[in-house]
Amino acid sequence: MKFTVNRQSFIKKLNDVSRAISTKTTIPILTGLKLEVTSNEITFTGSDTDISIETTLRADDENAELNVEEAGNIVLPARFFGEIVKRLPEATMTVAVKEGFQANITSGAAAFTINGLDANSYPHLPEIESDDEVTLAGDVFRDIINTTVIAVSNQESRPILTGVHFTLAGDQFTAVATDSHRLSQRKVTLPTPATETHDVIIPGKSLVELSRMIGEDSTDVKMRLAENQVLFLLGDTSFYSRLLEGNYPDTSRLIPSESDTTMEISAPTLLSAIERASLLSHESRNNVVKITLKGEEKSATIFGNSPDVGAVEENLSAISLEGSDLEISFNPDYLKDALRSFGQSQIKLSFTSALRPFTLVPSEDEQNFIQLITPVRTF
Amino acid sequence: MKFTVNRQSFIKKLNDVSRAISTKTTIPILTGLKLEVTSNEITFTGSDTDISIETTLRADDENAELNVEEAGNIVLPARFFGEIVKRLPEATMTVAVKEGFQANITSGAAAFTINGLDANSYPHLPEIESDDEVTLAGDVFRDIINTTVIAVSNQESRPILTGVHFTLAGDQFTAVATDSHRLSQRKVTLPTPATETHDVIIPGKSLVELSRMIGEDSTDVKMRLAENQVLFLLGDTSFYSRLLEGNYPDTSRLIPSESDTTMEISAPTLLSAIERASLLSHESRNNVVKITLKGEEKSATIFGNSPDVGAVEENLSAISLEGSDLEISFNPDYLKDALRSFGQSQIKLSFTSALRPFTLVPSEDEQNFIQLITPVRTF
Repeated sequence: MKFTVNRQSFIKKLNDVSRAISTKTTIPILTGLKLEVTSNEITFTGSDTDISIETTLRADDENAELNVEEAGNIVLPARFFGEIVKRLPEATMTVAVKEGFQANITSGAAAFTINGLDANSYPHLPEIESDDEVTLAGDVFRDIINTTVIAVSNQESRPILTGVHFTLAGDQFTAVATDSHRLSQRKVTLPTPATETHDVIIPGKSLVELSRMIGEDSTDVKMRLAENQVLFLLGDTSFYSRLLEGNYPDTSRLIPSESDTTMEISAPTLLSAIERASLLSHESRNNVVKITLKGEEKSATIFGNSPDVGAVEENLSAISLEGSDLEISFNPDYLKDALRSFGQSQIKLSFTSALRPFTLVPSEDEQNFIQLITPVRTF
Repeated sequence: MKFTVNRQSFIKKLNDVSRAISTKTTIPILTGLKLEVTSNEITFTGSDTDISIETTLRADDENAELNVEEAGNIVLPARFFGEIVKRLPEATMTVAVKEGFQANITSGAAAFTINGLDANSYPHLPEIESDDEVTLAGDVFRDIINTTVIAVSNQESRPILTGVHFTLAGDQFTAVATDSHRLSQRKVTLPTPATETHDVIIPGKSLVELSRMIGEDSTDVKMRLAENQVLFLLGDTSFYSRLLEGNYPDTSRLIPSESDTTMEISAPTLLSAIERASLLSHESRNNVVKITLKGEEKSATIFGNSPDVGAVEENLSAISLEGSDLEISFNPDYLKDALRSFGQSQIKLSFTSALRPFTLVPSEDEQNFIQLITPVRTF
């Protein structure tokens, strides 16, 4: 195996697959980066068994300056190899594997020799052969992930809740996550209906990495589902994730259909006030903020306090406030996460009583995006 | 006590004194920020007993928008008060202390009440009355600190070596630091000779904070020395540090006066090569890099290796190389720190033998700046 390549192009691909490579794995070969070199391309693979990423650098990409002298495969220690590549002196570098699994890396006057491993010992990636492919715009899909993944559970006691539940039926694509204290649900209508019905739970951690890979690009993301794996295709990159097994709880019955008090307000205005109130609730043992709604004054008063440190009170004017007066207490961190997911929008909050969950929806799109928060009993 | 002030101007001063405020102190009142308000200014004080910082916000500073309604003093929990001030909704805020030590902080609709402490319980800052003041340009002094403080010891076993040794005699100002493995020494000629001779050891940690406060400004820094304290004056800010007690070792005899091999090379070129070699030495147990100098070829060959991971070799051309051939091994991290302190300069390295310390000086100023490194015996 021997090739010369532009270092920056190589580093970009190496960074992409490095997202899947953990230094903490118990399987030594998975701390490695697999390189498969053919006459016209290099395929990079990284995996931590939960997530696997594969990407390709092609000789027909002019920036790659790729020149393959001899094909071959090798697994190199990923973190260490990456540090070497980043610190080489010249714009291009040459990687050669002669005998055994020792790789020579040269660039200018610098010559490294590092010990690799046999690429034949690297685990095979799952094979997903599926004709049923769903295509989503990158920015839409990233937004769906980022607004739902906030509500997944971090507790391994109920593993199923550490994932986001995706359902696909006809042209309706739904994502929902809940940690049993709060819930986030998004719905999207697909331009082309899917031919099959799907119901899968994807680990939140996989989705966070996937969302980072989509980045600011709005390139299409293609999703292919198999029995226990999902494959996302982003240009030259394949992103595999395992699925969570089990039945996701029925969340539709958690969302209240009626309300006694509704308030419309700007999301960033409410967010700033809740951030201030949480400064105090964080200093207290139970981390609770109280909100008092008065219909007549169209006012929402936010209270936070900590016996040791002090108290805060802030009076906000709602755009509209209808229904019964109400006093309700909740974990402000849940409300902050929910409010951030609405960006600069105007939102509608709907309350039933001090002990029943309340919901937040964007005023302009009440049907397709909902955040739900369970209050805290303080009496 | 009651005043209204521009929040950004207040935050700037608060950040300055916060450098001296530790959350880990065993003296509770020192987690606080002391505010002393008179009719025309606010004085901010923070201290961790090693370092104390005092600064003033004046009513005649237009950006401060300071309006004092009632004078008074208070100590407020620094970290928490700072977080509140940074998150207030309006451009200005009002702070009022009515009864007890409770402070009301208001801005727009937000109203905080926080518990403070009696300012009379706050420790007094040292009084330094000294006519003998040394004035240094800010950027020069910051550079002296940053190039010497790298060589202070982190080991509390010999506390004296955790400081930088400053001596002042006539117009000669000298700073030297050593951790017994390496040494860094700077000399500066003062425009105005000092009237007294001084010999003090300032803790490295104090100097790092001071250097950050000087920032990119090149405003003059005035230094006043007392028996066990030093005071630096930077505009409206006073920075106090305790001095280390004891006798600093005589370092002048450590610097060799002769050499057998000298090499001139560009500091950044050598630095890059040493950084690459240290990637491998860091993976090995003894963290040693070897350099081989050959006068005939004017070449310096750098070797790094780790039995488990691999090896690197890099051949550099020296600008000049005179004297005996030599092979010498050393901790590359010491050499990296030293090389960084020379920036983009051309430097001269002088060696005596494989077991004697070697020195680095800038080619353009051999007398006033020297870095010394002790080699490692590898045979």
